Amino acid sequence: MHLERVDPDNLPSLHDDEATVTGKVPGSRKLRERFDELHDRLAKLQRVFYADGRHALLVVFQGRDASGKDGTIRNVCGAFNPQGCRVTSFGVPSTHELAHDFLWRIHNAVPPRAMIGVFNRSHYEDVLAVRVHELVPEAIWSGRYQQINAFEAGLVANDVIIRKFFLHVSSDEQRERLQERLTNPERNWKFRAGDLDDRARWDEYTDAYREILGRCSTMDAPWFVVPADDKRVRDYLVARELVDTLESLDLRYPEAAPDIMRYASLVD
Amino acid sequence: MHLERVDPDNLPSLHDDEATVTGKVPGSRKLRERFDELHDRLAKLQRVFYADGRHALLVVFQGRDASGKDGTIRNVCGAFNPQGCRVTSFGVPSTHELAHDFLWRIHNAVPPRAMIGVFNRSHYEDVLAVRVHELVPEAIWSGRYQQINAFEAGLVANDVIIRKFFLHVSSDEQRERLQERLTNPERNWKFRAGDLDDRARWDEYTDAYREILGRCSTMDAPWFVVPADDKRVRDYLVARELVDTLESLDLRYPEAAPDIMRYASLVD
Repeated sequence: MHLERVDPDNLPSLHDDEATVTGKVPGSRKLRERFDELHDRLAKLQRVFYADGRHALLVVFQGRDASGKDGTIRNVCGAFNPQGCRVTSFGVPSTHELAHDFLWRIHNAVPPRAMIGVFNRSHYEDVLAVRVHELVPEAIWSGRYQQINAFEAGLVANDVIIRKFFLHVSSDEQRERLQERLTNPERNWKFRAGDLDDRARWDEYTDAYREILGRCSTMDAPWFVVPADDKRVRDYLVARELVDTLESLDLRYPEAAPDIMRYASLVD
Repeated sequence: MHLERVDPDNLPSLHDDEATVTGKVPGSRKLRERFDELHDRLAKLQRVFYADGRHALLVVFQGRDASGKDGTIRNVCGAFNPQGCRVTSFGVPSTHELAHDFLWRIHNAVPPRAMIGVFNRSHYEDVLAVRVHELVPEAIWSGRYQQINAFEAGLVANDVIIRKFFLHVSSDEQRERLQERLTNPERNWKFRAGDLDDRARWDEYTDAYREILGRCSTMDAPWFVVPADDKRVRDYLVARELVDTLESLDLRYPEAAPDIMRYASLVD
C-alpha cells in the first residue's frame, strides 16, 4: 500500500470513492504496528538528513476543511526532532503580505538545507480559495500555475526536495467531521461559518484541485492524492512516502576531519 | 524533585557538585515512567495552550558544549505538536545580523501568542561567548544585562511567558562527552576545535554564567540551573518545570459562539 505520483495524463477524478483505498488494507492493529515502524524510521532518517545537510525537504499539505491536515502534521511530522522541522500555516494573508507578490511569504518560509519545512496550506490557496471565491480576476490567477512551476523548479534546482499531498476526503466524511466539530467543546471554537460556504462550493473546489494536479504535478515536485477518509491509512501513506523519499537520497553523516583524533589527547 | 528559580541573593556556585541532584533520585525505571507521564501531560497542555491563545511561551536553553541542549530539545520539546512549536538555534551571527543591534534577530524569533518558541542558545551568548572571547569591549557588553532585562520585561508585559534553563554539566562529564563525540561517526563531524578552546576557559565561562544568573533571573523571566550530568534527570526536571508553568496558566478552550448549534442543520 503506497501512494503514486499524480500523472497529469491520467488525472484522478477526485470523486468520493477515491477517498478510500482500493484493494486490501491491513487490519487496524497491523496498520498501527507498521505506522509505528515508519515513525521510528522517520525519526532516524531525519537525524542523518540533518547531519548530511545537502538537501532541504519541503512537504506541502492541502485539503478541504476537516480533511486532516492538522492531524497528519501532528502524527507524522511529530516523528521529527523539532529542531530540524519547521511548520508554517498559511492563513488569510496580512495587509503586509498582500502588498507583495503571492509567492513572497511562501519563499520566506522555504526551509534551508538540513531542515524539513512543512506547509499547512500553501501558495496553492492562491489558485484554490482565491479562484473559487473570485478574489482576483481569472486573468491573474490563471497565470499562477506557470509561476508556481517556475518557482518550484528553482527550489528543486537549489537542493530543495518537494513533496505535495492533497488529503482527499469524501463529502460524507467531511459532513461527519464538521458535525463532530460543532458538538466537541475542544473543537467547536474552531468552527467558522466559512467552512460551510466552502462545502457548498464542493464541485468548484474539485475542479480547482484537479487543475493544480494536472498542471503542477511535475516529476521533480509531484503531487500525491491521499485517500483520507480513514485517518490511520492517511497517516501510514504519508509516512511511507516520506520514508521512501528520504531513503532515496543516499544520506550519510559527514566525514570528520582526517586528523580528528589528534584532538582526543587535547580534551583534558 | 523539581527546579527552583535562581535567587540572585543566593547564587549557585556552579561548581561540579551542582551538576548532579542532591537528595533521593528515583530509580531509572521509575524516572522513565514519570518522564513519560510528564511527556503526555505536555502534549495535552500544549493543545489547550494553543487553543487558548492568550499567551506565548518562550523557553531558552543555554549551556556549555555537550551540556545536552540538543538532546533536551529533542526529548522534551518533542512532546509538542510541531505545528505549535518553533525551535530557533542561534549560531554565529551573519553579517546581516551583525549590522543590527544584538536583540534584533532574537526579537524576530520570539513566538506569537498560542505558540511555543524554543531557543537553542540565545541573546545570552552576547554576554557569554562575546564577553569571554572579548568580541566587543566591556563598555559594550556590560550594558547588555540591563537591555536584556528591559527587553524581557517588555515581552512578559505582552503575554510572553519566559523560562530560561542553564544546563549545568561538570568538567568530568563534559570531558567524557567530548571524547565520545570524537570517536562516534554519527557525531564526530560536529566536533569543532573551538569546543576545546571554550573548555580551556571553563572558569571565565563560570563567571559569565553566574553574572547572568545574578543579574537576569527575575521573577517574571527566571533562570533555572538544571543539574545535567544525568540526562534522564535533566529531561525530567525541565519537563516538570514546563508542566508546572503551563498548569499555572489556567488554560481553557475558547467558548464557541453562543449560537454555534444553529450551524448543525446547515451541514448537509
